[in-house]
Amino acid sequence: MSTDPAATTEPTDTSTVERSASPDFVQSLARGLAVITAFDADHPRQTLSEVARATGLTRATARRFLHTLVELGYVDTAGTSFWLTPRVLDLGYSYLSSMPLSELAQPHLEKLSARLDESSSVAVLDGSDIVYVGRVQVRRIMNIGITIGTRFPAFATSMGRVLLAALPEDELDAYLADTDMRAITPHGLTDEAALRAELAVISARGWSLVDQELEPGLRSLAAPVRDRDGRVVAALNVSTHAARYSLEQLHDDLVPVILDAARALSADLGTVNR
Amino acid sequence: MSTDPAATTEPTDTSTVERSASPDFVQSLARGLAVITAFDADHPRQTLSEVARATGLTRATARRFLHTLVELGYVDTAGTSFWLTPRVLDLGYSYLSSMPLSELAQPHLEKLSARLDESSSVAVLDGSDIVYVGRVQVRRIMNIGITIGTRFPAFATSMGRVLLAALPEDELDAYLADTDMRAITPHGLTDEAALRAELAVISARGWSLVDQELEPGLRSLAAPVRDRDGRVVAALNVSTHAARYSLEQLHDDLVPVILDAARALSADLGTVNR
Repeated sequence: MSTDPAATTEPTDTSTVERSASPDFVQSLARGLAVITAFDADHPRQTLSEVARATGLTRATARRFLHTLVELGYVDTAGTSFWLTPRVLDLGYSYLSSMPLSELAQPHLEKLSARLDESSSVAVLDGSDIVYVGRVQVRRIMNIGITIGTRFPAFATSMGRVLLAALPEDELDAYLADTDMRAITPHGLTDEAALRAELAVISARGWSLVDQELEPGLRSLAAPVRDRDGRVVAALNVSTHAARYSLEQLHDDLVPVILDAARALSADLGTVNR
Repeated sequence: MSTDPAATTEPTDTSTVERSASPDFVQSLARGLAVITAFDADHPRQTLSEVARATGLTRATARRFLHTLVELGYVDTAGTSFWLTPRVLDLGYSYLSSMPLSELAQPHLEKLSARLDESSSVAVLDGSDIVYVGRVQVRRIMNIGITIGTRFPAFATSMGRVLLAALPEDELDAYLADTDMRAITPHGLTDEAALRAELAVISARGWSLVDQELEPGLRSLAAPVRDRDGRVVAALNVSTHAARYSLEQLHDDLVPVILDAARALSADLGTVNR
C-alpha cells in the first residue's frame, strides 16, 4: 500500500508508475503517461478494469485518466472499451520535429538506399537501447518490422556498437554492469570482454559490422554521425542479406559509401545552430 | 484569469490547455502533455520561461512539469535548457503497436513499392487531418518529408478524399463547415461543391486521384482499406511523378495494382479479432 503523501485522496492506488520523493513530482502526469503506455500490441483495446490492473491504479483513478485522455483526443471509447487514437503520434512527432537529426538524415538515407538498393537507418542511444529516429526501407530482410521509435539492445546491433564505442569509459562500465548480454543474443557476442575488444576495434577503424548475430543472413554495417564538436551523437547503418554481398564486397564497396554518407550527414549537422 | 476550481493553488496560470468543466478532468495530465507538444522544429530547446510562455503556465508550474518529465526520462536538461528525449517516441509507439493496421500494412506497402518502384503509405482520419500510420519511401518526390505521424488536411490529399468519401453525410457536413479549403491549396479544389462532386465520384468508382494539386508533378492515387464489417477505416496510396506515368498509364496500370493491395490489406484486417 502507498504511503506517499501525494496519494492521500487515493489511498489504495499501488501504481507501478515510478514514484519520486521530490515534492515537485507531478504524480498525475506520471500516471497519465503510464495509462498511454499500457496499450500495446497485446492490449490494443482495454476495459477500465484492465487499464487499472495494468497501471496499478484504482478503478476510480484510472477512470479519471481515461476520461481526461478521451477529452483531449488521445483515447477513444465505445461501450466499455478504450483504445489510443492517432493523436498519440503527435507526442512522438514533437520529439522528431524538435530534433534536426531526423529531418537532416532523411535525404542522406534516401540517397544511400537508392544507390545500394538496401534499407538504411539512423539511431540514437537512449539508456541501454538504440532508438530508430530515421529509416528508409526498400525491402524487409529482418523477421521483425522496424519503424521510427523501434528499440533494440545497443550491444547487439551495429549502430549500438558504434554508439557504445564512443562512450566515456565510466558510462560504458555502467552500461555493461546493467546488461545481461546472454539473455538477448544467444548466437552473438555474449561476453563482456569480447564486446570490449570489439568496441576498441570499432573505435579505431570508425565503423562496425554485425554479421548474422541477430538473424541468419542479416548483415548490418554502421558508422558514427558527429555533431559540430566531433562528438558521436548518432549512428547510420545499412542492412543487407549475406546472399547479396560477400564479406569482401561489404568491406570494399559498402564501407566507403556508408562512411561517406555518415560524414555528409555530420557535415549537415555541423551547420545547425543549437 | 482562470476561475477553474481545480487551479486554486496556481491562480495565475492561464494555460492554453483545453479546460474541462468535468470534475473528472485531470488538469495536470493535460498540462504535462501540453509541455511535451510545446517542443517542435522551431523550439527544439527551451528555457523554463519559454515553456511557461508557450503553455500559459506559471514558471513554478512549468518547472514542476519539466522536472517530472526529466525524472521520467522524457525530457533532458543541461544548464537552463530543456529538450525532449527519444523516450517520447515510446508514447507514439504505444499507439502504433496497439493498432494491427500499421503492422499488417507494412508487408503490403513493401510489395507495392518494390513492384512499382514508388513510395506508398497508409493513413487514417483524425479530426480534419489524415495521419500517416505506415509508409515505405523509395524516393523523395515531395518537397516536404513524410514520416509516420505526419498530418495533412484530409480534403487536399488522395487518401483524405477516400476517407471523406466514406463518411456519413452529417460528419462530412460538419467537416466542411470547419474547413477553409482556400487557405491550404490555392491550386487545388477550393470549392465545397466541387469537393462534394469529387467525393461522389470517388465513392462510386472506389479510388481517388490527386493530380498535381499539392505540388507540380506530384500525382497520388489512393484506395480504401476496410475492416471485416466493410467499413472504410484507412486509405492506402502510391505517389508518383507526372514524368514517370502518364494519366493513361496511371489509370490502366496503377489503379488495379493499388486496388489489389488495398483489398489484400482489408482481407488481412478482416482476420483480426478485436
